[in-house]
Amino acid sequence: MKKPLLLIAFAAFALSPASAFQTSQPDPAALRDAALASDTVAWDLLEGLTTEVGQRMAGTEAEARARDWAVRRLTALGFANVHIEAFDMPVWVRGEERAEIVAPFPQNLVVTALGNSGATPVRGIEAEVVYFETVAALEAAPDSAVRGRIVFITHAMQANQDGSGYGPFGAPRRRGPSVASRKGAAAIVIRSIGTDYHRNPHTGVQTFDEGVRPIPAGALSIPDAEQLQRILRRGQPVRMRLVLTPRNIGRRQSGNVVAEVPGTDPSAGVIVIGGHLDSWDLGTGAIDNAAGVAITTAAAHRIMQAGRPRRTIRVVLFGAEEVGVFGGNAYFAAHRNDGNVVLVGESDFGADRVWRMTTNLAPANTALGDRINALLAPLGIVRGRDRANAGADLGAWANAGIAAIDLNQDGTRYFDYHHTPDDTLDKVDPAQLRQNVAAWTAVLAATANAPERIEPAGVAAARQ
Amino acid sequence: MKKPLLLIAFAAFALSPASAFQTSQPDPAALRDAALASDTVAWDLLEGLTTEVGQRMAGTEAEARARDWAVRRLTALGFANVHIEAFDMPVWVRGEERAEIVAPFPQNLVVTALGNSGATPVRGIEAEVVYFETVAALEAAPDSAVRGRIVFITHAMQANQDGSGYGPFGAPRRRGPSVASRKGAAAIVIRSIGTDYHRNPHTGVQTFDEGVRPIPAGALSIPDAEQLQRILRRGQPVRMRLVLTPRNIGRRQSGNVVAEVPGTDPSAGVIVIGGHLDSWDLGTGAIDNAAGVAITTAAAHRIMQAGRPRRTIRVVLFGAEEVGVFGGNAYFAAHRNDGNVVLVGESDFGADRVWRMTTNLAPANTALGDRINALLAPLGIVRGRDRANAGADLGAWANAGIAAIDLNQDGTRYFDYHHTPDDTLDKVDPAQLRQNVAAWTAVLAATANAPERIEPAGVAAARQ
Repeated sequence: MKKPLLLIAFAAFALSPASAFQTSQPDPAALRDAALASDTVAWDLLEGLTTEVGQRMAGTEAEARARDWAVRRLTALGFANVHIEAFDMPVWVRGEERAEIVAPFPQNLVVTALGNSGATPVRGIEAEVVYFETVAALEAAPDSAVRGRIVFITHAMQANQDGSGYGPFGAPRRRGPSVASRKGAAAIVIRSIGTDYHRNPHTGVQTFDEGVRPIPAGALSIPDAEQLQRILRRGQPVRMRLVLTPRNIGRRQSGNVVAEVPGTDPSAGVIVIGGHLDSWDLGTGAIDNAAGVAITTAAAHRIMQAGRPRRTIRVVLFGAEEVGVFGGNAYFAAHRNDGNVVLVGESDFGADRVWRMTTNLAPANTALGDRINALLAPLGIVRGRDRANAGADLGAWANAGIAAIDLNQDGTRYFDYHHTPDDTLDKVDPAQLRQNVAAWTAVLAATANAPERIEPAGVAAARQ
Repeated sequence: MKKPLLLIAFAAFALSPASAFQTSQPDPAALRDAALASDTVAWDLLEGLTTEVGQRMAGTEAEARARDWAVRRLTALGFANVHIEAFDMPVWVRGEERAEIVAPFPQNLVVTALGNSGATPVRGIEAEVVYFETVAALEAAPDSAVRGRIVFITHAMQANQDGSGYGPFGAPRRRGPSVASRKGAAAIVIRSIGTDYHRNPHTGVQTFDEGVRPIPAGALSIPDAEQLQRILRRGQPVRMRLVLTPRNIGRRQSGNVVAEVPGTDPSAGVIVIGGHLDSWDLGTGAIDNAAGVAITTAAAHRIMQAGRPRRTIRVVLFGAEEVGVFGGNAYFAAHRNDGNVVLVGESDFGADRVWRMTTNLAPANTALGDRINALLAPLGIVRGRDRANAGADLGAWANAGIAAIDLNQDGTRYFDYHHTPDDTLDKVDPAQLRQNVAAWTAVLAATANAPERIEPAGVAAARQ
């Protein structure tokens, strides 16, 4: 499938179909093609954030440095109204993490704590491992089979283009710890929710159900999870020592960084796009989500450079997405009644090429959707039938009935690196990054300058 | 290149050219093809050693468990004269390891100590980083530019089929620490000697020159090394905190595990093959070198199952290769004057397919070389012009003039995993592992039953 798409993308340089509906504004196709050919702003932002800040765990001083970095960069790029909107949140930080098979075959395993994991004593705990293939199997087991033991759950997630496995196959992480705790488990370790074969475990948030005691909850790298399965298959009791010493350090400040490209027509509404500034602490958050920060900022910057658009474009770089969408929720709570947001869209699925656009535009905006589609097709982007959900940080707006556009990136290798130490700059392909910038540039050019009103999608339409 | 080779390999099933020179012994081509089609012994050994022992650092109790495991398995497989030949050696073990950029952009880097690294205090050291592109550039620098600093050296190793980059590009690891220490450096970190982009650093042995003070010497993962280069390129002074606390724990016991397929003709000499049983401590030593242990043992086992060969085949699973070829050296010292070894060959380059055979056979054994070549060609194996060197553990024999055969494996991805936590079972392709067993089976069938005398290669021939 890749080759035809690439050919189409290259053909874009030659074709550049003129925008038929608006001649007084910059040609969206020309803006798109310039981004595809030569954008450097996104790479500079991506390289800068991952190098000059690195990891930026929500609520920590590293995330604060990321906000300062963003304010400096956005200001230097010429955006208007650059500011931080602060909020408070509870902060959990990682401690020591070690896992060791004590018997029958002594050896170390690579483990990392899941978000909000409880802690073992400093010296760790030692217990027998009890294995379940699924959360359902754990739920079905008698408490006596689990009590005092270290639960181990695996899964069979496979890589695919749309990342749709992450929902169902993520259950061991999202639900496993609460179920295990309720049954009296001493701790839980899961096979990392990922698709690679490297000894880099995948962290990620989980939240203990109300009233459930937090137990130590870790993820083994996938090679280590398979090693543990092989050891268990020998049929002898398996004893594990586990050291996980994360801490809750109380409420700290996080914040969203906001910047604008002011529009000429205040009555036409505001378009809100963005990504999230925070990352997990293991890698440098290149694909998750310095890429989204870089892509949406670079696209907005291209529109700004081409002349003042009709609608204001607002870039929001959200804080504290990974640990519970605190920034997105704070932003929605603060601005839901502003009454001027007409369209939202987030980039938060890495930097591999956009292959599909989905929208939830109102029927009255069918022509606008068609124009966007025509602009994206030369980039090898197809139109999907799913309804846009606007990502974690802006999803509340789509759910509330605001129009949204999603540009779906190829997720085939996304879960090889997602939430691991391996989420680093080298995983981003500059050419595919430029394709992302080109796609968002096209979307912004078409929507910010659209002469028609952008209608609310409506709550029913938003809820698929 | 792969496809034609594969076609030839598959064609082997159909062709099975009859061995023209010896009708009373099992047909070597048939033995070869059976291994290619259905060998399970090698996988069982590989899976067993990496699962039931895991890492097996030289001179540690883990390596002792590996010897016990090997004695049990070799005995169960029916080998004769299974025994351990013990030797003593100095043992170095890893401690804590952390690296952190303190300024200008605070962040953690992934580091591991190189073999024989000196130690920092428990709290670490903090110093400015001074960067050199090569060891030669470090050597050319004035001592004043290095004194009290943490030296950082990079390299430009690329993956290739024959692994020939490992020699020249390995200089930062092998020579960098001694050169840095002599110039008064506080410590040295190198870009890992490898070809991957994962945050798994590559350890490996280095030995401080006589009289040189051991300094802390670590390897950064390749993404971390590139991150450090990007940070240095900003032009501000870069300060690093480094914690490496390895220890020398004195002399401990290691050993070689020996097993035989007894021959019918003691006057025809002994063929010695093998791999090394020890591994680095970060991974489970699947490609380095449970694979070589498994391949050579499985091939010898196939010859044994087919009937008693003319020559004795001796499988030696060497101890303590990684940290200085202690096992190979001990074996040569103990047996160099036995006067019965006529041919040697080691498998120690992973488990990807054999693509080339090289020999150092004496001119009188040209016909034998041709017969081996004819048996290997259907496996997609070409004949190389280099002279065989018999690997690290048996190289002393080839250097001393004994005939040797090398089966060179495809090394394109070998240095992605070599000496890293990522050297685990999942990196081995069972089909390519069987091709290795088939190739060694063919070599053993041809040589163990060769009717002619196997001549010494001669010292001149051995030294290329």
